[in-house]
Amino acid sequence: MRGQLVVFEGGEGAGKSTQLQRLSARLGAAGVEHAVYREPGGTPVGDRIRDILLHSDMPLAPAAEATLFVASRAQLVHTVVKPALAAGQHILLDRFLLSTYAYQIHGRGLPARELRAANELATAGLVPDLTILLRLPVTEGLERAGKRGAADRFESAAREFHDRVAAAFDQFAEPAWQQAHPECGKIVAVDASGSLDVVEQRVHDAIAAHCPALLTRAGTRA
Amino acid sequence: MRGQLVVFEGGEGAGKSTQLQRLSARLGAAGVEHAVYREPGGTPVGDRIRDILLHSDMPLAPAAEATLFVASRAQLVHTVVKPALAAGQHILLDRFLLSTYAYQIHGRGLPARELRAANELATAGLVPDLTILLRLPVTEGLERAGKRGAADRFESAAREFHDRVAAAFDQFAEPAWQQAHPECGKIVAVDASGSLDVVEQRVHDAIAAHCPALLTRAGTRA
Repeated sequence: MRGQLVVFEGGEGAGKSTQLQRLSARLGAAGVEHAVYREPGGTPVGDRIRDILLHSDMPLAPAAEATLFVASRAQLVHTVVKPALAAGQHILLDRFLLSTYAYQIHGRGLPARELRAANELATAGLVPDLTILLRLPVTEGLERAGKRGAADRFESAAREFHDRVAAAFDQFAEPAWQQAHPECGKIVAVDASGSLDVVEQRVHDAIAAHCPALLTRAGTRA
Repeated sequence: MRGQLVVFEGGEGAGKSTQLQRLSARLGAAGVEHAVYREPGGTPVGDRIRDILLHSDMPLAPAAEATLFVASRAQLVHTVVKPALAAGQHILLDRFLLSTYAYQIHGRGLPARELRAANELATAGLVPDLTILLRLPVTEGLERAGKRGAADRFESAAREFHDRVAAAFDQFAEPAWQQAHPECGKIVAVDASGSLDVVEQRVHDAIAAHCPALLTRAGTRA
């Protein structure tokens, strides 16, 4: 059985990484083998790209930023994710295609057709089985992110940028958008407000409803 | 007056960099101001990408390789080439769009439509005024390149790869191909066999015939 690919998406401070780790701990406790990766990164090449993207103070043209994300994704998909899924391994991924659509197309204003085509090079037909979209008001998210210390290139962007990103994520939660973007697969919005425990349960419920195969051991056949 | 953009292209060992330097020296001696850049690279971000592309021994998925070239190009075009041309500066460029078409589409076999669209992000409508395509039999080029010391990722590729690249460059020299690819601009093939002095004169003649504005001082009006 092919492994399941579940992606966590959302704006700054929505709790993607925290909730992904909590889901990973739950899966681990239940004996469900899986691997966890993040974008950009997840490979030695991707980590070098991540360093250029997030932590360098070199000015970066929006088109260069977007294609660096695509390059990191291409390396991760081709050398790690596709072989692992084919071998029956489940994968949890911290950001994927939707982040490019939200941050680079809607946030930076890059042309959708070209960037969508570029992403096809990276994904080569791979579609997530489920994307958990964590939603939180922008003000609350930026406050949470601000408590984490030094801001990266995106956290330090203007408020208007984050508003555009949030509006994009809202759009992606709608069925009509998902029908027009089959490459993004099934997207389920989860309310990220409230305690970590409460959000963790919401995420788990969403997965039980929309991707129950993740909660079973990979590599075994029903 | 907008500056002129002249690109040098060709397979391994065709003498691109050498002939570009010779043209640059001629222009300098004639008091024609200009700048010289190479791909990948030409910017601090591009140089970090160059290091991943050419000199790291990390395996690189073809789609990651291709999009890293695009990212380096995007940074160079947006932060350096476009502002310089607009300010009336001439630019000589060692490799550009045609190298992606030859090496990544024809050499690596990546899909043309997606990679062409990705490149539109990088070039954003910028078309070279002239591309000098240096042509040399593959065997001769690889022999020349082999004398330069340690081979990079491309020089060390299989002979079949270089044959596909050479066949692609041959195709790009044909008028029908250029008509179907207006984003590549005018391409003139120059025989790269013979002495450096002889080839230098051929390059100069091609520029005098097809891009005479490069031979005049930029920023002045006729």
